[in-house]
Amino acid sequence: MDFAPDPRSAALDAELSSFLSDHVLPAEPVLEAELAAEPDRWGPTPVIGTLQAAARERGLWNLFLPPNPLGLGAGLTNLQYAPLAERTGRSPRLAPVAINCAAPDTGNMELLIHSGSDAQRDRWLGPMLEGRRRSAFCMSEPDVASSDATNVATRIRRDGDEYVVDGVKWWSTGAMDPDATLLVVLGKTDPEADRHRQQSMLLVPRDTPGVTIVRPLSVFGYDDREHGGHAEIRFEGARVPLDALLGGEGEGFAMAQARLGPGRIHHCMRAIGMAERALDLVRVRVGGRTAFGSALSEQGVVRQWLAEARIELEAVRLLVLKTAWLMDTVGNRAARTEIQAIKVAVPRVVQQVLDRAIQLFGGAGVSADTPLAALFAAARTLRIADGPDEVHLASLGRAEVRRSPA
Amino acid sequence: MDFAPDPRSAALDAELSSFLSDHVLPAEPVLEAELAAEPDRWGPTPVIGTLQAAARERGLWNLFLPPNPLGLGAGLTNLQYAPLAERTGRSPRLAPVAINCAAPDTGNMELLIHSGSDAQRDRWLGPMLEGRRRSAFCMSEPDVASSDATNVATRIRRDGDEYVVDGVKWWSTGAMDPDATLLVVLGKTDPEADRHRQQSMLLVPRDTPGVTIVRPLSVFGYDDREHGGHAEIRFEGARVPLDALLGGEGEGFAMAQARLGPGRIHHCMRAIGMAERALDLVRVRVGGRTAFGSALSEQGVVRQWLAEARIELEAVRLLVLKTAWLMDTVGNRAARTEIQAIKVAVPRVVQQVLDRAIQLFGGAGVSADTPLAALFAAARTLRIADGPDEVHLASLGRAEVRRSPA
Amino acid sequence: MDFAPDPRSAALDAELSSFLSDHVLPAEPVLEAELAAEPDRWGPTPVIGTLQAAARERGLWNLFLPPNPLGLGAGLTNLQYAPLAERTGRSPRLAPVAINCAAPDTGNMELLIHSGSDAQRDRWLGPMLEGRRRSAFCMSEPDVASSDATNVATRIRRDGDEYVVDGVKWWSTGAMDPDATLLVVLGKTDPEADRHRQQSMLLVPRDTPGVTIVRPLSVFGYDDREHGGHAEIRFEGARVPLDALLGGEGEGFAMAQARLGPGRIHHCMRAIGMAERALDLVRVRVGGRTAFGSALSEQGVVRQWLAEARIELEAVRLLVLKTAWLMDTVGNRAARTEIQAIKVAVPRVVQQVLDRAIQLFGGAGVSADTPLAALFAAARTLRIADGPDEVHLASLGRAEVRRSPA
Amino acid sequence: MDFAPDPRSAALDAELSSFLSDHVLPAEPVLEAELAAEPDRWGPTPVIGTLQAAARERGLWNLFLPPNPLGLGAGLTNLQYAPLAERTGRSPRLAPVAINCAAPDTGNMELLIHSGSDAQRDRWLGPMLEGRRRSAFCMSEPDVASSDATNVATRIRRDGDEYVVDGVKWWSTGAMDPDATLLVVLGKTDPEADRHRQQSMLLVPRDTPGVTIVRPLSVFGYDDREHGGHAEIRFEGARVPLDALLGGEGEGFAMAQARLGPGRIHHCMRAIGMAERALDLVRVRVGGRTAFGSALSEQGVVRQWLAEARIELEAVRLLVLKTAWLMDTVGNRAARTEIQAIKVAVPRVVQQVLDRAIQLFGGAGVSADTPLAALFAAARTLRIADGPDEVHLASLGRAEVRRSPA
Repeated sequence: MDFAPDPRSAALDAELSSFLSDHVLPAEPVLEAELAAEPDRWGPTPVIGTLQAAARERGLWNLFLPPNPLGLGAGLTNLQYAPLAERTGRSPRLAPVAINCAAPDTGNMELLIHSGSDAQRDRWLGPMLEGRRRSAFCMSEPDVASSDATNVATRIRRDGDEYVVDGVKWWSTGAMDPDATLLVVLGKTDPEADRHRQQSMLLVPRDTPGVTIVRPLSVFGYDDREHGGHAEIRFEGARVPLDALLGGEGEGFAMAQARLGPGRIHHCMRAIGMAERALDLVRVRVGGRTAFGSALSEQGVVRQWLAEARIELEAVRLLVLKTAWLMDTVGNRAARTEIQAIKVAVPRVVQQVLDRAIQLFGGAGVSADTPLAALFAAARTLRIADGPDEVHLASLGRAEVRRSPA
Repeated sequence: MDFAPDPRSAALDAELSSFLSDHVLPAEPVLEAELAAEPDRWGPTPVIGTLQAAARERGLWNLFLPPNPLGLGAGLTNLQYAPLAERTGRSPRLAPVAINCAAPDTGNMELLIHSGSDAQRDRWLGPMLEGRRRSAFCMSEPDVASSDATNVATRIRRDGDEYVVDGVKWWSTGAMDPDATLLVVLGKTDPEADRHRQQSMLLVPRDTPGVTIVRPLSVFGYDDREHGGHAEIRFEGARVPLDALLGGEGEGFAMAQARLGPGRIHHCMRAIGMAERALDLVRVRVGGRTAFGSALSEQGVVRQWLAEARIELEAVRLLVLKTAWLMDTVGNRAARTEIQAIKVAVPRVVQQVLDRAIQLFGGAGVSADTPLAALFAAARTLRIADGPDEVHLASLGRAEVRRSPA
Repeated sequence: MDFAPDPRSAALDAELSSFLSDHVLPAEPVLEAELAAEPDRWGPTPVIGTLQAAARERGLWNLFLPPNPLGLGAGLTNLQYAPLAERTGRSPRLAPVAINCAAPDTGNMELLIHSGSDAQRDRWLGPMLEGRRRSAFCMSEPDVASSDATNVATRIRRDGDEYVVDGVKWWSTGAMDPDATLLVVLGKTDPEADRHRQQSMLLVPRDTPGVTIVRPLSVFGYDDREHGGHAEIRFEGARVPLDALLGGEGEGFAMAQARLGPGRIHHCMRAIGMAERALDLVRVRVGGRTAFGSALSEQGVVRQWLAEARIELEAVRLLVLKTAWLMDTVGNRAARTEIQAIKVAVPRVVQQVLDRAIQLFGGAGVSADTPLAALFAAARTLRIADGPDEVHLASLGRAEVRRSPA
Repeated sequence: MDFAPDPRSAALDAELSSFLSDHVLPAEPVLEAELAAEPDRWGPTPVIGTLQAAARERGLWNLFLPPNPLGLGAGLTNLQYAPLAERTGRSPRLAPVAINCAAPDTGNMELLIHSGSDAQRDRWLGPMLEGRRRSAFCMSEPDVASSDATNVATRIRRDGDEYVVDGVKWWSTGAMDPDATLLVVLGKTDPEADRHRQQSMLLVPRDTPGVTIVRPLSVFGYDDREHGGHAEIRFEGARVPLDALLGGEGEGFAMAQARLGPGRIHHCMRAIGMAERALDLVRVRVGGRTAFGSALSEQGVVRQWLAEARIELEAVRLLVLKTAWLMDTVGNRAARTEIQAIKVAVPRVVQQVLDRAIQLFGGAGVSADTPLAALFAAARTLRIADGPDEVHLASLGRAEVRRSPA
């Protein structure tokens, strides 16, 4: 249970740190300007391409990929990747994509590596590893509580040498971007099978007839355009050949679960980085601001909440590191309880830190003059995405009831 | 200390309730469509004009005005107005403006009634009472903690028969709307005077040379366009005649305080209505949604938080009603402590209710498919606007220290 | 919905206030000394008798009794009694008993008034109204969740012209006192009847053969000796004549519910007084204590929590007053939801106020040098007694699910 | 940063675990009976002697002592001791004393090892290491905020070849026990010296003329008799020879700080064990209890809070382990911030877990039928002892303000 960053991780982190200061943070206002200049564009703006080139040159690329049979990516353990992912959370709209470590592509790439056929990998994985193409993951549905997998209403029907997809998905992040050419779709192939064998996963090209990108969804007023937004997608008799099936029939649920484990921990790591960014901003703010006769940094209430923020953040960071270490040593499945725990614990701490940072910044905090309100919206959403807190808490509670005394 | 609605208030509330169901709620999607159709428009869209006409016809107009020497408006007490304001909070983007009871115009109209000269009232008040013109209140400044009035950096200098204004204001709500022709500006006329006699208030036409509408500010990702947004405004040598002074020199702070009392209680009333709207939506949601084998409405955790929401909401509503009653009976100044208390208590309860409602709605909760995320942004902002919670808590704490034992 | 104290209530409160300052508070250390001198005594010590005499002389006696057909007691409405009960909460070990308004006797006296036969009232009620005898209420059982009435395991069997009681009760407050000669016992007469018709109530003399006072229970280390403690009682074939039945067979549940309504609101009123006592003490403490260069009363964190305490206390007090008003105007049954709400809301606010008061007093706060720790234990227990919070929240949540939109 | 228990620690923990099950837990009711049988006894009862003998036989003795120049005790690192200390927290009245690892003796023994002269060690340390004598630490004072060291009012005056002590101390844990023959007393030798050089530490025999054990203090309603209680002690012209000085004049503050670091982490470790004990009890409770139609263990609200408890407990345990590791690797002084963080974080989590466990147990939870209420009182006190939370939070907040961005 050794959590300290090893030399390789530390070296990458130092590199990433300077990349952030030198390139990413200065690019934030550029991004805003580019978005304002092209109000209808969905997908990365030019500055993101520039960042990606600079990152790749520095060896900061595909860091999210753990050791894998194909030898792809950086091959870092979760524990090695943890500080790096945290660091990208300081500028979550730019840093993850700059180093090709942004969801949902990361999860989709992992799926292809572990379950894809050679042909599937040739077609889809290569361009994604290069950062030339993006993808979306189509799991959530508007009409049911999708965290309960038996509720999935999308149907995948075999018809001769094709699969036919019917259903409505939403919160398909990235899918508004025309370059997100791959949609990974979860649907039911056999509603009569065992609870967790009903679902399968298909690789559906975005331009398949019968696929309609219905509309973008906003998050607290943000459209996340540079990231391809979040789409509602309708599948009406969309047909793909049989070899578009990822893994086998009935394996969809298991693959989705396997995909979500790393995805959740990455989200948690980045969320901690978001809170650290907020604290960096707060330190500057409270040092230079005076009210009612003293600097904010001298005021007891301010100090107390800074202390609380630090304590809570350190505690959940250790929880994340322990989870990463468990995933590395006993595997994602055995670390399931811990993954659920951080999925619940981290976003609520981060949301609280951000809420207070916003409070300290006043009007600037809720506006676009600081990244705080956008960070808040992102952190708030984490309590819903990939299963709402309540589902994880119920599962953790059941495990606790059954726990043997130590 | 009788809080029950009297017959007049109850009759107006019944009328308002049916107006809401019949006109306002159905107008919400219309507003969205109109805003989407004119992405550069700032200010009310056509449907708002339609609602105003319908409201006026029903006698639902200028309800916010308490009894006043000029006999203007509905002449309702704060206690009579409370349930009405709460009801408009159920659709805060449409209902308040529909009945000409939207901030900041309400506060500015009160200022003109109590401190305006006949000429000032003729020019500015009449059109605002008709709903033909709007206005903005320019108090907050980006570079200082404006809740400490001695920090105000905008200068108002007398030069011959004119006042010259220099400074930067922001969060001037409504001022992006070209029809918000009046800017009520707080600045310092005498930085050497007593702490609370340094400030004065000027009526500055929006089209005065030297006045620049710099940019709109967003709240989370919302621009509040239909309401005229929130502007940053620069005053550079902007000149107005001496009779643009509202009240006397040095009276600015006192007038600002007097203006904020009713403003704060109105915000609180509407915020409670926002929470009630959320609970209405939640009841429908949890009744019709199933997860893990039972309807959400049957699940203990859901029921517990609905119970908590109801308890907390009832408690703060009573606090607001008591405050209204105090304002009516002993005056706004004597009710100052209570006004501070509700200013802190209500938004935090409402924010919490909305946060949980969002959680229950999942993805729909953070998107524009429900009003919840926008309501959350509005409620969150109330903890900052008109003085952040911390300033009020510090003041309340000082009062508590000095309190005599009962 | 007029909550202000009327002249009669205000006059009694003024009298009670001076009684508290002049007699009750000075008696607190006397009580401690008397208890220390007689370590095995259960029941009121001499100083309590002295206080009772003084109170009665001042007309401060049986104030808890609402208007009733027999014309007994003060005949105050709940709203009139509220400030008086709150005031007694400032010294909860002495003040309620001093004016003969202490639980569980109050509830038992109400039961006798409303459901007792003339003979029952002659025997039991008279001496209790005089403060000469006390009583206990035997409802909770150690082996089941007694908040679910169907769980009650005590059996009351009719055998000829007698009832025979078998079962174990606990938390029979007061029953360690030999002068608590009456035990009001809830048991099942018909386990096959409808859910809420299975239970009946018996008046069992404490010295009945087959009744064993097993042991006293402590509350956070406190034995509450002066109040008769809290007893576990075993009934083994205890026999009473048929006319010991209170009301009719099968009416036990309904009578228990009716009894608990006023009991709960009285507890809430007193709990608020407990918090006010704590705040009185805190004000003195923070004014006279210095740490790290300034008086505690000048420190931001201290002021903030005093402000929070005041806000929350005012809010729940209004909730209690509204509930009292409802009980007076529409009856206890119709006010059921509100009674549940305050049952949950008040103790948690009071516990939080007391927790922070303890923190400000440091070592003195947890010791017997202040009443704070004992008040905390009492407030904490209120979240369990008469049904734990969770039961009330579940019920309130169900009501909220079914609520019609306003 | 490797937190896993090493083989030695794991082996000791296994031994300690079986010692706890076989000896300590069964001794809990014996302790109660022994205390009841001798109501005036202060200090260990016979069963404690029996446990100590059994523990020593198993090699479970003086485990708290880190590697030291004298080679005394077990010589475990903080990280090795952590799981052991946590385990003793499951029965905090018996387990720590059984293995001679109870405060305040542990801290006093460390002081003697590091700062004592040979003569001092011969006289005092030996018997304490054997568990034959106990001691008290006299630091807190009733009249000042002792967390601010400059407030210390006890004076130590040199008079010829003696020191004369005058002052009042309280919360001298253990000092009611006549076998606590050593009082370690902090007082001011030079009020004019630098802030942290004014204080010195003296070894004062309990039977020194001028030393009066004034009275015991209770914690909530508990007197902690078996542990020697908590005493108020008056020093009036109490004289000791010059060689009773521990370390040098002016070193008192530094020694006190050095003593408190390990003390605080030990408290935190044990507190986590207290929470784990509570969870063990809760699991049994909720499995066997039914209310409103289902086992408590099946109810969503119960499961949710069990999940919350587990998450929070795991997070703070990691924080404690990291702090232990830091103390072992960079030293107590360098780990100061982390020690402050756990001092705040752990007790509040544990208090919350215990509060909820009490709630689930209802009446049994507040009584002596479970250890929960006594554990709660102990945990609550930790937020005050060794410096209240607020002092640590203020210090942590100051550090955070000054932190360099990562």
